[in-house]
Amino acid sequence: MNAIIGQSGGPTSVINATLAGVLQACLARGAEKVYGMEHGIEGLLDGKYKEMTGAITSEMGIELLKRTPASYLGTCRYKLGDPDKSPEVYEKIFAILKKLDIGYFFYIGGNDSMDTIHKLSVYGRQINSPIRFMGVPKTIDNDLALTDHTPGYGSAAKYIGVVMKEIIRDATAYGNKYVTTVEIMGRNAGWLTAAAALARGEDCEGVNLICLPEVPFHLDRFLAKVESMQKERNSVVIAVSEGVKLEDGRYVCELSDDVKFVDAFGHRKLTGTARYLSNLVASNMQTLTRAIELSTLQRCAGHVTSRTDITEAYQVGGAAAKAAFEGHTGEMVALKRISNDPYQCTTELVDVGAVANIEKKVPLEWVNERFTDMKPEFLAYARPLIQAELTPIYINGLPRHTILDM
Amino acid sequence: MNAIIGQSGGPTSVINATLAGVLQACLARGAEKVYGMEHGIEGLLDGKYKEMTGAITSEMGIELLKRTPASYLGTCRYKLGDPDKSPEVYEKIFAILKKLDIGYFFYIGGNDSMDTIHKLSVYGRQINSPIRFMGVPKTIDNDLALTDHTPGYGSAAKYIGVVMKEIIRDATAYGNKYVTTVEIMGRNAGWLTAAAALARGEDCEGVNLICLPEVPFHLDRFLAKVESMQKERNSVVIAVSEGVKLEDGRYVCELSDDVKFVDAFGHRKLTGTARYLSNLVASNMQTLTRAIELSTLQRCAGHVTSRTDITEAYQVGGAAAKAAFEGHTGEMVALKRISNDPYQCTTELVDVGAVANIEKKVPLEWVNERFTDMKPEFLAYARPLIQAELTPIYINGLPRHTILDM
Repeated sequence: MNAIIGQSGGPTSVINATLAGVLQACLARGAEKVYGMEHGIEGLLDGKYKEMTGAITSEMGIELLKRTPASYLGTCRYKLGDPDKSPEVYEKIFAILKKLDIGYFFYIGGNDSMDTIHKLSVYGRQINSPIRFMGVPKTIDNDLALTDHTPGYGSAAKYIGVVMKEIIRDATAYGNKYVTTVEIMGRNAGWLTAAAALARGEDCEGVNLICLPEVPFHLDRFLAKVESMQKERNSVVIAVSEGVKLEDGRYVCELSDDVKFVDAFGHRKLTGTARYLSNLVASNMQTLTRAIELSTLQRCAGHVTSRTDITEAYQVGGAAAKAAFEGHTGEMVALKRISNDPYQCTTELVDVGAVANIEKKVPLEWVNERFTDMKPEFLAYARPLIQAELTPIYINGLPRHTILDM
Repeated sequence: MNAIIGQSGGPTSVINATLAGVLQACLARGAEKVYGMEHGIEGLLDGKYKEMTGAITSEMGIELLKRTPASYLGTCRYKLGDPDKSPEVYEKIFAILKKLDIGYFFYIGGNDSMDTIHKLSVYGRQINSPIRFMGVPKTIDNDLALTDHTPGYGSAAKYIGVVMKEIIRDATAYGNKYVTTVEIMGRNAGWLTAAAALARGEDCEGVNLICLPEVPFHLDRFLAKVESMQKERNSVVIAVSEGVKLEDGRYVCELSDDVKFVDAFGHRKLTGTARYLSNLVASNMQTLTRAIELSTLQRCAGHVTSRTDITEAYQVGGAAAKAAFEGHTGEMVALKRISNDPYQCTTELVDVGAVANIEKKVPLEWVNERFTDMKPEFLAYARPLIQAELTPIYINGLPRHTILDM
């Protein structure tokens, strides 16, 4: 029997460590061939898949794969319809899997990907397919239910902690009045923005204001807070989620002129939260301002990953293969924290249907009373996830990656 | 006799390694006290300086200083007037220096800072002051004359190479048509933008289009190039200088609506080149787009420095102290390349007056004929400068810095 693996949703810097984990465990457990879907289930439907063998399964190949950001196999955002409405899609997928003699199907992704696994496993049971379908969690957003955290979050949180410290150093260098607004990913869940709180320490003043999408945003209160903070210090550094919303439900970035711009597909662009707020501050206060968007860098910074995260990313891959080979299907591997200090974490299996399409938010009891900062409970949760480093393999001055088509 | 050191101009991730080099060499050569100006000459004029002693001069202090980005002492943008017009400023500076029993004065910075050293040394000679004035080069922009390159450039170039590789991996993950425009610092000199060419290699397709400020920018030709490139590949990644200008002399970013915005000081903001070009592409082509500004991250990324650069940054500091203690004044330490392969580089002294206020541009013969990419001559120049790494000292998951006021 053979196995097939797909990657789906937004890239992370450790999703390929999970791919490495599934791949090695499948081979160790006797899979004859392991295929990779190119661009997830969308590619599979187009007959795009590749046997994962040769250089990539060598020890060196695995080490490079662990250190390669984004999705080695390519990714997609494909929403699988209901089998009642589009049975032909399901028939096609199962026909391809049968042709390839697939016994084990792994999908590495977030909410939507778990929905895909859920639907395929339900359909598979209905048609008495022997194929095992396993979900493997991945998302920098950390918004999956039933898992303590998601692989990918720790490295993105570490990246945010690292660059916030550096931005704070830079912003204090001139000694001028200076308000820096840093826009961080996570449209509905503020886990990444909250990670900016990690910057504070013996050697760092820390971020002065943290604005999560879970907390309604008031322009006036925001300005009042920034003004009051700048009375106490010249440099004020703000971490703001791209998804902060006014009480009337509008995104702050929708207030910007730039959002009126529509691209060739008719998509409105929802960016520019930091820019809007930065201009607002500059118009109302006597201060220099700067807006910084961490943009894709926060999800693809393979050069600064958390070793804790990358190890867990690899482990959930192996655990998924183990479960599938032991007969499980329709489940997702979750991370279960045993203790914070010393940090201990194990894996368990959860019903993938209970994970699909649910977004886990930051608990409001982890935010301080003035809604400016995270409480120690959040730091105790997040700090273990950013510990230790996996050194890139530098060749000729730059980190080496491994890529599919070269 | 005592020494005093100041930092000036934009922060870099290695300027504190230069500070460490001057500091250690001054102490080794018998300076009784070494002072640091807080926020450069502007702070000195306000009587703000500090003796550098205790923890910071310990071995551990020096190692942390080398790894701390931005300006440990704080920086300024202070343009020293002519002594004829503002003699009181000169009299005040020399009175402060006399009071502190200063024999050696070091200023770490770029063009403007070298102008300061030039003026102070000329004035000092006129009044028969025994103080030695030495310039120590620093700028990520690499635009100083009479030196092969500047400390700070190698680390910023390495950062750009690293993140361009990661951005390229991320941009190819979906397999969609996708145009990514990355805005890089350097308003008049394209050295940093050119460094995006370093990304290409066995494991990376490389950047597809590089737009330097040295080459006049044509919106139509730009669009035509991007369209033609996307016929050959889905993902097109563009590195563009923040300072690209049309033939009529207007900055491209001035075409953006956003630039009409004026802050409380009446400053017009000149940002948004990538955003403008990205919107232009989206309006004219059937493709997804993304604009990324590397912003301050490219000058303060202490977590990914070039060891070659940081070693040279330390060395020019030591060479400046040596020269001053041997009686030199009114000079700048320059880097002189002996060979590319193996890379060898030494220091020499140049007349600081010949460096002041001159901007060194990227030679156009290092740009290819279609103005899309850098030639091998540039890569041979830049590649040695990004070699090897200086590992941060990670504590609790984040790189440790050292700061003045904690």
